[in-house]
Amino acid sequence: MIVVMKAHATENEVTEVLDRVEALGLRGHLSRGAERTIIGVIGDDRPVEPEVLEVLPGVEKVMRILHPFKLASRDFQPEDVVIRLANGATIGGGSVSVMAGPCAVESMDQLEATAEVVAAAGVKILRGGAFKPRTSPYSFQGLGEKALRMLREVADRLRMAVVTEVTSPEDVPLVAEHADILQIGARNMANFVLLRAAGEGGRPVLLKRGLGSTVDELLQAAEYVLATGNHQVALCERGIRTFETATRFTLDINAIPVLKGLTPLPIVVDPSHATGKSELVKPVALAGVAAGADGLIIEVHPNPAAALSDGPQSLTPAAFFELMSDVRRVAQAVGRPA
Amino acid sequence: MIVVMKAHATENEVTEVLDRVEALGLRGHLSRGAERTIIGVIGDDRPVEPEVLEVLPGVEKVMRILHPFKLASRDFQPEDVVIRLANGATIGGGSVSVMAGPCAVESMDQLEATAEVVAAAGVKILRGGAFKPRTSPYSFQGLGEKALRMLREVADRLRMAVVTEVTSPEDVPLVAEHADILQIGARNMANFVLLRAAGEGGRPVLLKRGLGSTVDELLQAAEYVLATGNHQVALCERGIRTFETATRFTLDINAIPVLKGLTPLPIVVDPSHATGKSELVKPVALAGVAAGADGLIIEVHPNPAAALSDGPQSLTPAAFFELMSDVRRVAQAVGRPA
Amino acid sequence: MIVVMKAHATENEVTEVLDRVEALGLRGHLSRGAERTIIGVIGDDRPVEPEVLEVLPGVEKVMRILHPFKLASRDFQPEDVVIRLANGATIGGGSVSVMAGPCAVESMDQLEATAEVVAAAGVKILRGGAFKPRTSPYSFQGLGEKALRMLREVADRLRMAVVTEVTSPEDVPLVAEHADILQIGARNMANFVLLRAAGEGGRPVLLKRGLGSTVDELLQAAEYVLATGNHQVALCERGIRTFETATRFTLDINAIPVLKGLTPLPIVVDPSHATGKSELVKPVALAGVAAGADGLIIEVHPNPAAALSDGPQSLTPAAFFELMSDVRRVAQAVGRPA
Amino acid sequence: MIVVMKAHATENEVTEVLDRVEALGLRGHLSRGAERTIIGVIGDDRPVEPEVLEVLPGVEKVMRILHPFKLASRDFQPEDVVIRLANGATIGGGSVSVMAGPCAVESMDQLEATAEVVAAAGVKILRGGAFKPRTSPYSFQGLGEKALRMLREVADRLRMAVVTEVTSPEDVPLVAEHADILQIGARNMANFVLLRAAGEGGRPVLLKRGLGSTVDELLQAAEYVLATGNHQVALCERGIRTFETATRFTLDINAIPVLKGLTPLPIVVDPSHATGKSELVKPVALAGVAAGADGLIIEVHPNPAAALSDGPQSLTPAAFFELMSDVRRVAQAVGRPA
Repeated sequence: MIVVMKAHATENEVTEVLDRVEALGLRGHLSRGAERTIIGVIGDDRPVEPEVLEVLPGVEKVMRILHPFKLASRDFQPEDVVIRLANGATIGGGSVSVMAGPCAVESMDQLEATAEVVAAAGVKILRGGAFKPRTSPYSFQGLGEKALRMLREVADRLRMAVVTEVTSPEDVPLVAEHADILQIGARNMANFVLLRAAGEGGRPVLLKRGLGSTVDELLQAAEYVLATGNHQVALCERGIRTFETATRFTLDINAIPVLKGLTPLPIVVDPSHATGKSELVKPVALAGVAAGADGLIIEVHPNPAAALSDGPQSLTPAAFFELMSDVRRVAQAVGRPA
Repeated sequence: MIVVMKAHATENEVTEVLDRVEALGLRGHLSRGAERTIIGVIGDDRPVEPEVLEVLPGVEKVMRILHPFKLASRDFQPEDVVIRLANGATIGGGSVSVMAGPCAVESMDQLEATAEVVAAAGVKILRGGAFKPRTSPYSFQGLGEKALRMLREVADRLRMAVVTEVTSPEDVPLVAEHADILQIGARNMANFVLLRAAGEGGRPVLLKRGLGSTVDELLQAAEYVLATGNHQVALCERGIRTFETATRFTLDINAIPVLKGLTPLPIVVDPSHATGKSELVKPVALAGVAAGADGLIIEVHPNPAAALSDGPQSLTPAAFFELMSDVRRVAQAVGRPA
Repeated sequence: MIVVMKAHATENEVTEVLDRVEALGLRGHLSRGAERTIIGVIGDDRPVEPEVLEVLPGVEKVMRILHPFKLASRDFQPEDVVIRLANGATIGGGSVSVMAGPCAVESMDQLEATAEVVAAAGVKILRGGAFKPRTSPYSFQGLGEKALRMLREVADRLRMAVVTEVTSPEDVPLVAEHADILQIGARNMANFVLLRAAGEGGRPVLLKRGLGSTVDELLQAAEYVLATGNHQVALCERGIRTFETATRFTLDINAIPVLKGLTPLPIVVDPSHATGKSELVKPVALAGVAAGADGLIIEVHPNPAAALSDGPQSLTPAAFFELMSDVRRVAQAVGRPA
Repeated sequence: MIVVMKAHATENEVTEVLDRVEALGLRGHLSRGAERTIIGVIGDDRPVEPEVLEVLPGVEKVMRILHPFKLASRDFQPEDVVIRLANGATIGGGSVSVMAGPCAVESMDQLEATAEVVAAAGVKILRGGAFKPRTSPYSFQGLGEKALRMLREVADRLRMAVVTEVTSPEDVPLVAEHADILQIGARNMANFVLLRAAGEGGRPVLLKRGLGSTVDELLQAAEYVLATGNHQVALCERGIRTFETATRFTLDINAIPVLKGLTPLPIVVDPSHATGKSELVKPVALAGVAAGADGLIIEVHPNPAAALSDGPQSLTPAAFFELMSDVRRVAQAVGRPA
């Protein structure tokens, strides 16, 4: 951290900052410029909030040098994390993994029809919502435990793994019993109670970026999970809020190479939520792969027009087959197995 | 809702939309323009998600006419909601209510010192964090239940009410036992499990706007609480995420009169979190009052330089007295008691 | 500036940075931490672009300590700038100045009717568009020179000053001949050719913040004008682009006290463009005054329903009289003449 | 357009809207719902501003059905526009065109060295800045006319075309004399005087999206150029302003397929400005191609560490060769010549 003193800070104020730095177990290095005195903080200050120094009299601002996360950082763990699932599927480590399935589990028929399609296209991880966090209290909220059992049954028959969202700390054991990966949704990215509970669930965690959250905050949220000792964490870019209204969200494509540089955790792209429109899913999915994503998560429905949720962004079976074929070609073009 | 058909939509596609509209218990009104056919949906379509129609073949887009909330709307409840607390304090109904206290309860001494200051300045509602949702897992996370008991004890002695945040559905009964108002923090605005639990807690709810959430989404989140039958809900504007980095967030001042027009729920402004800097708290608080806010929530600390959290945005006792005096003058200038 | 070296930067890379710093006429101060080496740049580095150092091998990032503007800074000119006009009107220096008039000059009748209303309400500076930058090429683009002559004639009769927008460097002499203040619109804030030409126009300049521009960029744009030797510059906050769609733009109320701290230039608020809706103009205007603005610029039309542009955000004469009366009360409440 | 009346709008107010619609040469279609009356506007209302109806008494809001541009729309011109240059190079029509060169022309040596590299890599269009719009008045502003002559000379020798920015209407004839394509920079996207002048320059125009501008506004800006009769226009996505600070801008990857659907104009991606960091240029460039872009514009410098501007985002010759090779592979994977 760098502490920048105000133009007319006194000697006493400078001393007070140096004392506070030492009280934190760190060392301060003083540098007097023509216009400002600055104090470099020496030591591992990642766990220190800048505000602890910013609040002192005479301080103009405090700037971080190191990113405010540690376990999630490549500095700490240089090699790529690979998530390994019971059915042999992996996420991370060079290949492009596709997770696919319906937005919400609506019925055994719908789930089976979808799962068979995506399995036939080569997908090894089945997605499907059991607990649905919906903006409106009047919308379909998911089939809950019943859906979890259906997911498990269908996945087992097709030798697939299951990824599904958990929305409450209390539900973690139940979801962990049926699913292979616990998904934390974008709206819960900063639900720290849930992050800790999910970390302790004994399953890999797929953490989606909050729609108003920075890359750094996503990595700090991952730190909550990693701090429980669970290192099987994947991150998901699913679009952020911007002023553009042509699409529901704006996929932050820059974030993919940025994250690949900062963290060894696998990065997944969700083009379905990032665009909200099925006709945009393929180009944006291919862009994600070209930019270096380790995986995709895609909504598919046997009959999108009848879907109880996210119909407009769900792919038909035919569109999904086409997407998979193009994903393989682009993955190969950038030197990666898919 | 208005359904806009694509330029070359077929008769069959139009019929399918009309059928779907009727299946939803609504009526469709057809209008053929030179370039587009549009279908007006007649009836109360607030609980219907536009995607249910957007997904149909031949549909270009679907636009809402009515806001997607009902219980939170002035159409439904025209008169201002007034929150009434056991100690006689109110929020809403014309006056300007101030809630103040430390960001986090750190100790009995710190809490008492702060509470006495804000009580002396005329404040009737004490704020203070017991469960702190922090961006970093390494930051101070609050004293939990111990802090709740301190808040109650100090508030009772000073005849104040207590507002404090609840971060987990499981904690609702405990927090409701000690607090007069349950606060839902910005990071949990779309934690729908928590919203429902808080609504059922038997206490008024102060719901903060998510930092990436629109005014409409804030009102839909309120709808989750209202749908539990709990109508004592206040909303809080606390700054949104924008590209500007001079302040931590951007207070959306426009949202205050916008919300006053859309909903009868009281609107509170949080200038401490919206700015992140103590020297900006007063001008932004006064702006909130001038724009029509029903209340303010302000962080105060007897010694901000020693605060365990949010020191840089906490007011000293002297600064808080000055703020209260100016708030009264501005409130009076716009014809409101404070 | 602070140069942060990468974790494994070599001695040669550090030396190269120090050499580049010296080549810029500045001095480097080395500080070796446990995890990173940092180099503090000593001297006035405001005119230096961080990229000049960021590009060197081994550099992780470069952070500014000083704001990248000088003439616009309170460090350079501590006392408030007051703009003084020929008719005795002023902007800045403690009082609240109101500029008002129609969005666009449409006819002599419309202009006179509006000017008489705003003059009767105590306004000394008449606004009115002659050259209108419109999003669509098919919209009314203003009456040009004819409008300029009308503005001058009406203003002279009512002893008012004129503020009007200039959109092209070539038009500066013509506009400067008829107007007292040259306005640079938000869409031209970063039109540096125009900024320079306007600075050389011999008139005070009212510079509006770009809708996608930060406070720092606004001050750098002001620097372009100030660098011509013209120090009579006022800045205008008129709303920025955010994800919120309830209003056309989001007025950045925080920016008012932030700017008052950074610069001695007067700060004006435009609640008409920031909200886009006449019913929001008054509360947001009052918020601006409460937050410390030096002035307001307001759109008024004798018959908004017949306006050729910006009708929905124009105040009727009656609404404008009410606004002026409330502005005076709030200004007084915060200790300022209006 | 759809006019939504307020809940309690009177018959007179409805009639007034219908009258105004007719006065605009359009027809109104009335539809009375349970809660709102709506009026559909029938006819080509693209050139009509919604505010003309929004301002009428009793109107709650006005929603566009048709996009507010015409000449830029695929409805109007379904087939892809192909820009054809004198040296045989094209932009649009299926292939991926790369424009490359230095950010700014600094000297004949630097320009030649760069041009030879990019020509050797297969590039047919040389980019290079002569007039540089810089955020700070103290930064290098370009060599002006001298640079234009160098660009022409070098390009002619290597049989390349030249694209360079024009920043002032007065300079259009001069730039058009030396360049094959006139570039309008992001900061001037809404400089409508310049757009018109550029349209009349007799050369194709490359129009960059403003950093705070929506896709619709970009197409309206293109409409200004197209309305001059010049149909050789390409659009460029170069990143927008968002809350994310890890990169200078956020490339809006969604905008590429969105634009391809809305307009026949070619879409170019600028990964250099969108990311600001050379190590991110390749992944984001490949993403652009995978998403369907018709071209790329890339900054290259023989020695980025010595560049007078944009060094950190400029590619070295070696990195550029690698990029070109990967671009070809990804282009092929998505079925396009490069």
